[in-house]
Amino acid sequence: MLLSYKRMNQHATARTLITEGRKLFASKGFDGASVREITTRAKANLGAVTYHFGSKEALYHTVLEEVFDDLAMRVEAAAAGPGTPDTRLRAIVAAVFDFFRGAPDAPLLVIREIAKGGPPPMPTVPRVRRVFAAITGVIAEGQEAGTMRRIPPFLGAFTLMSQCVWFSVMGPRMPAMLNIQIAPATLSEQVADHIAEVVSRALAVEDSHA
Amino acid sequence: MLLSYKRMNQHATARTLITEGRKLFASKGFDGASVREITTRAKANLGAVTYHFGSKEALYHTVLEEVFDDLAMRVEAAAAGPGTPDTRLRAIVAAVFDFFRGAPDAPLLVIREIAKGGPPPMPTVPRVRRVFAAITGVIAEGQEAGTMRRIPPFLGAFTLMSQCVWFSVMGPRMPAMLNIQIAPATLSEQVADHIAEVVSRALAVEDSHA
Repeated sequence: MLLSYKRMNQHATARTLITEGRKLFASKGFDGASVREITTRAKANLGAVTYHFGSKEALYHTVLEEVFDDLAMRVEAAAAGPGTPDTRLRAIVAAVFDFFRGAPDAPLLVIREIAKGGPPPMPTVPRVRRVFAAITGVIAEGQEAGTMRRIPPFLGAFTLMSQCVWFSVMGPRMPAMLNIQIAPATLSEQVADHIAEVVSRALAVEDSHA
Repeated sequence: MLLSYKRMNQHATARTLITEGRKLFASKGFDGASVREITTRAKANLGAVTYHFGSKEALYHTVLEEVFDDLAMRVEAAAAGPGTPDTRLRAIVAAVFDFFRGAPDAPLLVIREIAKGGPPPMPTVPRVRRVFAAITGVIAEGQEAGTMRRIPPFLGAFTLMSQCVWFSVMGPRMPAMLNIQIAPATLSEQVADHIAEVVSRALAVEDSHA
C-alpha cells in the first residue's frame, strides 16, 4: 500500500515534469530551458529529471512524442473515417485545426531546433511521416477511384499541412500584420474552410477544372 | 580626397557589419548574436555598430529592411508585369521562390523572434503588407474581370505565401523527413509549379470547377 502510494507519487512527479518541461521548452527552446527551472516549477528536486527520464534531452523527447503522437493519431483517425476521399481530406484539415487549438505550443516546441539548421528533433520524424502517410494514402485512394488527379500524393499532403502549420504559427498575428479586422475564432474557421476547399480543388480531376 | 577615401572606408565598414550581422542574426537569433562577435567578424572595432547604426537593434532592423524590401520589390514587380491576373500570380510564385533561393536565411532572421510570441520584428510589418497588398491587388483585378471567384483576396494571398514560406523553411528537410528520393533542385521546381497550379485552382470561378 505504501509502495503503491509512492509509485503514484513518482508517476505524478514525472507527469508534472512533462507539463512544466513542455511549457519551458515552448517558451525558451531546448537550450534555454534549464533543468533547474523545470524542476523548480515542478516542485521536484534537482535530480528528478535525471531520475525519471535520464536526461533533459530525454524529457524533451518524451514531450515531443506525446504532442506529435496526438497529431498523428488525430490525422490517422480522420483518414480512416467515413466518406469519400475528398470528405476525409476535409476531415483531416478539421482534425489538424483541432490539434493546434489544443496544442498551440506545438510549432514553438520545434521551431528553434529547425532554425538551428540541423535535422528536426528525432521523435518528430516518424510521427510527421505517419501524418503524411495517412494523407497520401487517402489521396492515392481518390486517384485509384478516379476522383482525384494523378499528381505525386506528397504534393497534396504538402498543400494541406503547410497551410495549416503556417496558420498555427502566424494566424494569431495575421490581423495586426495585414491590418484586417476579424475576430480570431472567425478567422480560424474561415481559414480552415478555405484550406479544405483549396485541397479539394488542388486534387480535382482535370476534366472538372477550367 | 583623404576625406572621401575615409568616407568610402566608413561605408565599407557599415556594409561589412550588415553582412556579418545578417549571418549571425540568422544563425543565432537577435539575442544570440553579440556585438562583439559581429564586430570581430567584420574586423571592426567594438564601437563600430553603435557608431554606424546606433545600436544592435538598429543594425538588425537595417538587415531586415534590406532583406524584406527585396522580397516586396520582387513581388510588386511580378504583380505589375504583363499577362492575365492568373499569369501574374504564377509569376509571383516564381518571384518568391527566386527570392528564397537568393535569401535562404530570410525565415531564420525572424523565426526566433516569432517563436518568442511577441509581435514580428517591426521592419517586416510594412514589407509583408506590401507583399500581401500586391497579391490581393492582382486577385481583386481577376475578380473584377470575372475570371477569379469572389473569396476574400487575403485568403488567396495566404494560400500562395504560406506554402512558399513553409517550403523555404522545411523544403531542404523534406526528402529526409518524408523518406522520398528527389534532388533538391528538382523538388524545388516541382513544388513551385505545384503551388502556382494550386493558387490558380483555388481562385478558378465556380462554374469551371466540379
